[in-house]
Amino acid sequence: MSGERLIYLPLGGAGEIGMNAYVYGYGRPGKERLMLVDLGVAFPDMDTSPGVDLIVPDISWLMDKLDRLEGIVITHAHEDHIGALAHLWPQLRKPVYARKFTAALGRLKFEEGGHPQDAIKTVGARPEVVEIGPFRVQFMPVSHSIPESAMLVIDSPAGRVIHTADFKRDATPVVGEGWDEAAMQALAAEQPVKAVMCDSTNVFSQHEGRSEATLAAPIADLIRTQPGMVVATTFASNVARLQTLAEAGRAADRSVCLLGRAMKRMVATAQATGILTGFPQIVSPEEALELPRRNLMLIVTGSQGERRAASAALSRGKYLGIELKEGDTFLFSSKTIPGNERDVLRVVNALSEKGVDIVDDNGGLYHVSGHANRPDLEHVHRLFLPDMVIPMHGEHRHLREHVRLAHEAGIASAIATNGTMLDITGDVPVVAERVQTGRTYLDGTVLVGAMDGVVRDRIRLALNGLAMVTVILDEQDEPLGEAWVELMGLPATGLNGRALSETIEDELTEFMEGVGGKILSDDDKLDEALKRIVRQVAMEEIGKKPEVRVVISRLAAE
Amino acid sequence: MSGERLIYLPLGGAGEIGMNAYVYGYGRPGKERLMLVDLGVAFPDMDTSPGVDLIVPDISWLMDKLDRLEGIVITHAHEDHIGALAHLWPQLRKPVYARKFTAALGRLKFEEGGHPQDAIKTVGARPEVVEIGPFRVQFMPVSHSIPESAMLVIDSPAGRVIHTADFKRDATPVVGEGWDEAAMQALAAEQPVKAVMCDSTNVFSQHEGRSEATLAAPIADLIRTQPGMVVATTFASNVARLQTLAEAGRAADRSVCLLGRAMKRMVATAQATGILTGFPQIVSPEEALELPRRNLMLIVTGSQGERRAASAALSRGKYLGIELKEGDTFLFSSKTIPGNERDVLRVVNALSEKGVDIVDDNGGLYHVSGHANRPDLEHVHRLFLPDMVIPMHGEHRHLREHVRLAHEAGIASAIATNGTMLDITGDVPVVAERVQTGRTYLDGTVLVGAMDGVVRDRIRLALNGLAMVTVILDEQDEPLGEAWVELMGLPATGLNGRALSETIEDELTEFMEGVGGKILSDDDKLDEALKRIVRQVAMEEIGKKPEVRVVISRLAAE
Repeated sequence: MSGERLIYLPLGGAGEIGMNAYVYGYGRPGKERLMLVDLGVAFPDMDTSPGVDLIVPDISWLMDKLDRLEGIVITHAHEDHIGALAHLWPQLRKPVYARKFTAALGRLKFEEGGHPQDAIKTVGARPEVVEIGPFRVQFMPVSHSIPESAMLVIDSPAGRVIHTADFKRDATPVVGEGWDEAAMQALAAEQPVKAVMCDSTNVFSQHEGRSEATLAAPIADLIRTQPGMVVATTFASNVARLQTLAEAGRAADRSVCLLGRAMKRMVATAQATGILTGFPQIVSPEEALELPRRNLMLIVTGSQGERRAASAALSRGKYLGIELKEGDTFLFSSKTIPGNERDVLRVVNALSEKGVDIVDDNGGLYHVSGHANRPDLEHVHRLFLPDMVIPMHGEHRHLREHVRLAHEAGIASAIATNGTMLDITGDVPVVAERVQTGRTYLDGTVLVGAMDGVVRDRIRLALNGLAMVTVILDEQDEPLGEAWVELMGLPATGLNGRALSETIEDELTEFMEGVGGKILSDDDKLDEALKRIVRQVAMEEIGKKPEVRVVISRLAAE
Repeated sequence: MSGERLIYLPLGGAGEIGMNAYVYGYGRPGKERLMLVDLGVAFPDMDTSPGVDLIVPDISWLMDKLDRLEGIVITHAHEDHIGALAHLWPQLRKPVYARKFTAALGRLKFEEGGHPQDAIKTVGARPEVVEIGPFRVQFMPVSHSIPESAMLVIDSPAGRVIHTADFKRDATPVVGEGWDEAAMQALAAEQPVKAVMCDSTNVFSQHEGRSEATLAAPIADLIRTQPGMVVATTFASNVARLQTLAEAGRAADRSVCLLGRAMKRMVATAQATGILTGFPQIVSPEEALELPRRNLMLIVTGSQGERRAASAALSRGKYLGIELKEGDTFLFSSKTIPGNERDVLRVVNALSEKGVDIVDDNGGLYHVSGHANRPDLEHVHRLFLPDMVIPMHGEHRHLREHVRLAHEAGIASAIATNGTMLDITGDVPVVAERVQTGRTYLDGTVLVGAMDGVVRDRIRLALNGLAMVTVILDEQDEPLGEAWVELMGLPATGLNGRALSETIEDELTEFMEGVGGKILSDDDKLDEALKRIVRQVAMEEIGKKPEVRVVISRLAAE
């Protein structure tokens, strides 16, 4: 076996929260057989990726090694773990392995994308084993904020790796499988663990995580005492929370109505795969309109203030005929993800204007996190006592803190951000290679490299506005007519009180008339000169330099 | 006195945090003599106002009543209270009244703006009285997160109004005047208070506010125990915090170096006006470079992750020769304002990559708010027992909660968002009028109305990208040459594998050749037809519809 090695390479998710994609490989250096774990998305924002639909990992490193890629494992159905699969699978075309609920959601995406649904294989929980190249993989159930998250037990000729995936230590998760401490101890006792690749999201949360089950009583108490309609929002994929909310509604004599496509899809899939049973009968929006407000509860999408989701629509006005008003209550059974504060507060303030009472989780009563907190991470370190802990699923600050935690427990550890290939064959992690990684934008129907300049140009347009210049010259390089300027995203009037476009046109025309043929005959020089004039006039008149595009049309002799 | 009335009208700051501008008036309806309190800015963001430099209140309501505007009062020197003054003063040209430190900072802005510095009058603390039209105004010192915030005691023929401005109840504010409970009780006993216009920022904070003085020991303990360089950031205007930080540095045998223009201006102004005494001798960045790391402390701008501030510069690399490294400590002695999370985390993660230890206020040890919390607001309600409490300085959710608080205490109250003119002559607030208000963008050197479409166009460009089409026709409306397409912010290649611009050009040229003179001779119809083709081809090729601008050049017969 000498000369062969076990490698780990994050292509996404390490040094950021989102867009998870981790490669494992085993074999001779450069000849390793590979397995990809998760293929998720990150979400665009106006600051860095305006107009982009989704962000997926740059998989170019994998693309010239497709003959060595044996398969793809999806640990759970959160978008940051599965969201890129349907978009990138056409380039990969390898078998996908997931548990039942995850596979069902994946197949829905494959159906929409027109990909073969049988490319996704359903795998049972441990002790079932699936062989993926040199790896024997078991799916060990863990609790998380979506059903069926799976800790991967990855056996290789170089030893066993535990890939925790997203998890929390919750023995009573309301829906789906809980954290089974006895089963975990049996796993730990089974054979030595070389490495634990471990969720780092909540490494800064100092207290032990709370169980989903602790929410039932406070939520029921809250909903029972509200005088009007109750609307609750949470992530659609948090099926346990939907169940808790719906049961609280039913206990308060309220009919439950689900709003939002994702919400209905999740409940239907959870029911179809047998994960969710006993979910109350739901009513349609039309039926909801006929009910007294105090007998109605809506469970809606949009806990992060997403503009197109049901919660934002309800905050703006009627949605499917339903309108909130004074005396109604809106519950955020959720946490605002950093970066979404403005969007959430926009919804909150719009609801406040309608007279709706807003209840959020600032008191800590109506939401629990789906990730393991620091004491839970320490528990897992102690449980498996691996040779090494490699933090994943976190920003740099999370990974760094998690490494410190492992070191405190006397366990070898290393920060491996996206593109850092670790050789974990020995007792300690060794950096084997630095690989170029990055982000790919799904923009409309096209995949665009984040560094291609497309989005950079959009950001420049947004910051600086645009001046478009058109000039026409004849075959003797003489200007035909005057320069024409169109402005977009710029003030119409300059400090001189005239239309800015006219001021610029005058300067350009004057220049064109006075400059010699040496400039007029040279597209590059003319382009440069015209741009300089536009920027200079704009700076004088409006105090900023716009983006400038010049179209020089030369009429050929006929 | 019958027929005269006392009015209150927020033009900014009520229904938002930022851009404070409140009008008071007294007189016959429509003839009131007016006083403006504060004239602040809000800060732009990429989501709603890309490329904008500052947001100032729309003062058009005031502009046709300038003959009735008697003066402008500035309560304190935070940008959301004074920031628009120098930009809008040229339109108003009325005397400005402020206390010494505030006036000094205002004059620096006037100097930069080329406005007469003597337009800003310095007013002493109560019992000094300044007469502004029908109002007699006293500046009652309160504690806040900047020196010299002033609660305004506004006497009118219709009675006394207390305008709290931004305040907290802090008897030991380290620098400047504290909350003087005895003086407040004397004020309350002096005569009945008709209305308290009250800061609402922290109405959701359930515990009594903590004093600035409580920070000294924890900050000193922290700084003393750090092995390397310590960098601390807070708002430059929080002079008391600068003092606490600097003293902690000095106590730990560290020389203090200030980085950031705003930081140095604040300290210099506070020293020049006698507010800050005993601030440690500071060293220059050049001197700092010569010191051992463990004998150095930097106090820097950029607590909100602002890209151009010192903290962001240090997180990216060297700044004025200084570079952070493993073993250094970075203290955020600040709270992240909602909406700035991404920017702050960008700095935190970049520092983490450098191996710098980051300490923030999540433990509640190293920062206190400058605003009154709920129990403090209740205290103020009880203290003055006014006829009414009108919440200001808050988003809608804050105002609404504050109204509820006042009602609980049996005090009349009303939500008055921007543009809601209240008649407060009687015992209860009455809505007198709804006034058109809004935001004005300072964009470069030009003031642009938020609804003028300039910024809307920028947002569209950022979301959709741009296709620019140029066609030339001769005097017989025959196309001269082919259509020309330039793309910005769009993928270069479509699904067909060809350059998108060429695909569009081909379709446009084909159209131009086939369509009749009826379309070709009509600019509007031709423009519309070309745009439709561009959008349709783009939708097919890249799955999105860009912004399209068409330039039709018609060559006149010579």
